[in-house]
Amino acid sequence: MRDFHLICTNCNKTYEKETRNFKCEVCNEPLELKEVKNGAITQRNILGQSLLERYKEFYPFLDVEKAGSLGGEGFTPLVFSEELSKYYGISQLYFKNESQNPTWSFKDRGTITGILRAKDLGYTKVGTVSTGNMATSVAAYGSMANMETYILVKDGIADEKLKPIAIYGPNLIKVDGDYSKLYEESLRIGNENEIYFINSDVPFRVEGYKTIAFEICEQLNFNIPDYVIVPTSAGGDIRGIEKGFREFKNSGLIDKIPKMIAVQAAGCSPIYNAFKENKENIDRVKEPNTIAHAIENPFPPSGNQVLRMLKRNGGIVVTVSDEEIIKAQKKMASIGIFGQPASATSLAAVKKLVSNNYLKENDSVVCIVTASGLKYTAALEEHKLDVIETKLENLNKIIQKKVGIKPTFFYELLFFFD
Amino acid sequence: MRDFHLICTNCNKTYEKETRNFKCEVCNEPLELKEVKNGAITQRNILGQSLLERYKEFYPFLDVEKAGSLGGEGFTPLVFSEELSKYYGISQLYFKNESQNPTWSFKDRGTITGILRAKDLGYTKVGTVSTGNMATSVAAYGSMANMETYILVKDGIADEKLKPIAIYGPNLIKVDGDYSKLYEESLRIGNENEIYFINSDVPFRVEGYKTIAFEICEQLNFNIPDYVIVPTSAGGDIRGIEKGFREFKNSGLIDKIPKMIAVQAAGCSPIYNAFKENKENIDRVKEPNTIAHAIENPFPPSGNQVLRMLKRNGGIVVTVSDEEIIKAQKKMASIGIFGQPASATSLAAVKKLVSNNYLKENDSVVCIVTASGLKYTAALEEHKLDVIETKLENLNKIIQKKVGIKPTFFYELLFFFD
Repeated sequence: MRDFHLICTNCNKTYEKETRNFKCEVCNEPLELKEVKNGAITQRNILGQSLLERYKEFYPFLDVEKAGSLGGEGFTPLVFSEELSKYYGISQLYFKNESQNPTWSFKDRGTITGILRAKDLGYTKVGTVSTGNMATSVAAYGSMANMETYILVKDGIADEKLKPIAIYGPNLIKVDGDYSKLYEESLRIGNENEIYFINSDVPFRVEGYKTIAFEICEQLNFNIPDYVIVPTSAGGDIRGIEKGFREFKNSGLIDKIPKMIAVQAAGCSPIYNAFKENKENIDRVKEPNTIAHAIENPFPPSGNQVLRMLKRNGGIVVTVSDEEIIKAQKKMASIGIFGQPASATSLAAVKKLVSNNYLKENDSVVCIVTASGLKYTAALEEHKLDVIETKLENLNKIIQKKVGIKPTFFYELLFFFD
Repeated sequence: MRDFHLICTNCNKTYEKETRNFKCEVCNEPLELKEVKNGAITQRNILGQSLLERYKEFYPFLDVEKAGSLGGEGFTPLVFSEELSKYYGISQLYFKNESQNPTWSFKDRGTITGILRAKDLGYTKVGTVSTGNMATSVAAYGSMANMETYILVKDGIADEKLKPIAIYGPNLIKVDGDYSKLYEESLRIGNENEIYFINSDVPFRVEGYKTIAFEICEQLNFNIPDYVIVPTSAGGDIRGIEKGFREFKNSGLIDKIPKMIAVQAAGCSPIYNAFKENKENIDRVKEPNTIAHAIENPFPPSGNQVLRMLKRNGGIVVTVSDEEIIKAQKKMASIGIFGQPASATSLAAVKKLVSNNYLKENDSVVCIVTASGLKYTAALEEHKLDVIETKLENLNKIIQKKVGIKPTFFYELLFFFD
């Protein structure tokens, strides 16, 4: 085993190895890998290196060479939108498009670090509990790494979602029973049957998400944005991204850390509820209900740690309604980025935070787009989408009319003032 | 307008500007941009540059600076599979995973070059005729570039496919009538209404696909593979990739060009049919029928040029059956890559070419994975996918059994010989 230790995010107790449920044995709060202090970027041509090779100094506890033939995760684009920056009246609005990962969500970054850790410990089996992006990601990477893979999903999951998990060939098990019990039970069963469960806030999964921050720093030439907005459910993603910025700062690569903004769906906002009332611990949401299924976790395992992290970081939590999410999904598509509803919460948050004056005209903001819109096309039912129908012989007439009715006066006005 | 010219791929007649239908006025064959002879790679950190900035010397006829704020296309991973290399008994098998583009198909590479050309010519409107990947791509990039966008699709297209196009907000028109007439008619209507149609083998679209070759060269440290296998329909993709290798060779960056292998579905193989009979011109396929809809073009506009190119290049055309495609789709997913059926034809071709001894044990092969499996999930109906169902209280028993029945003797055998 490599030289490292895990630290409780709450009481700072240290551990030489994962605990059974990846939580602190004293306070039951999430563990975190010790911060890296003096890392540097391995500057080679990205086309010839993997994500973890590039940032290997930030993974002293993993054998990143083993990752060589896997994946292709990360190195996703950071898209600047002049149009939407102007529209929302802020200086710079960027989208980190995580839908361009191997299984079209950010989860792949954490799955690969989780799998490498499992291999390091000598496991030949991995697993996860999820109904969505993480299930697909672990199924894919488990196959890729040639490990026996166990994917536990909730009974009642739609066929539409099940088959794109099943195609990778995992042991796919639909479980009838309480979902949060399933999460706990999976870790117990994993221990007993030597399956390394890479669930949502497992420390070695969280480590993978640091690379989102690393890439943003490089893509902005180390001019750090003021805010990073992250759709937040279990809490692993935002924790990983913040840790990434922290480690780059520790290493002298950047001189400040952006404020982190966690966004939750109004229909399931346990972290927001606690934040608003200045509580230290989250409460379980009774009847979660939002179109943003991917962030519909009623009792997020890293919820308390997200609260502690935001307090230290100076960040906030916001909620957005399903209606705002659907509008934001359309708006984001209008600049060519089609994210699943959960992914659109970050842009919905921009709108909200501009209108209540939290975001100001000189601010630069990065929205994390967590996964592809193709993951959940049923959400498109919520949109009014126009389709014209015509016979071929009338096509020209239809197009002539369309082209003709363009409000060209706007452009003329622009030239007039030129 | 920039300094360049177009050359007929058949009779070498040159043009200073696009013809009305992008074909030669003499022989009606596709035009191609003049070959670049002395390009170099702009070696900056990829995270800080766009695809076209990196390869801008190969695009002297485009204002690539304008592409800066668009996209995020390209820089897709080249995944080596040790497992499948061994399985098929060849030296090196790679997958160029084009599903990690902004709209999850290779089309984005050609859409951006097409859009830049349209902008250069002063167009404010773009369009395309397609029912699949290209429709999505042009809809997305049209929005991104803030251009009025016309997407013409065939009547009868499934809602499942229509909505992920509509979300980007193009003028989406379902046309009832003959599809190949629609292709021709679109170019005529485009001319009349000042809409630049970036259809499948338009020269400026084909130019975009060169970057697939450029990246493969860089990713393999300029050790060129023996073969590149490309799912082939209209012919634009394979033409672009081959031209990319040619231009890198002209520029002294590589010393040979891989043999190109075009793969078609047995249910729609006009290029294969002509190739087999050593004809110079393709014939229209009467009743195309394959699960690989994305390559189901009965009369590909660049078909004859693909034949000419393959003759010069020394490449071949093969066909694969729907059954072989489905099996290959599953095999590819077993190493973590889920491509749409058309994308799996390249791996199906590997199997076929190994079994008939065309591919040999020392060969290195790159399969182009053209688009995401999420594009057409209905194809998953063709697979027998296992799902276990259980109550939570029986989960451990089920997993114990699964874990227990593992054929561990194989591993013991390995250790025995260690």
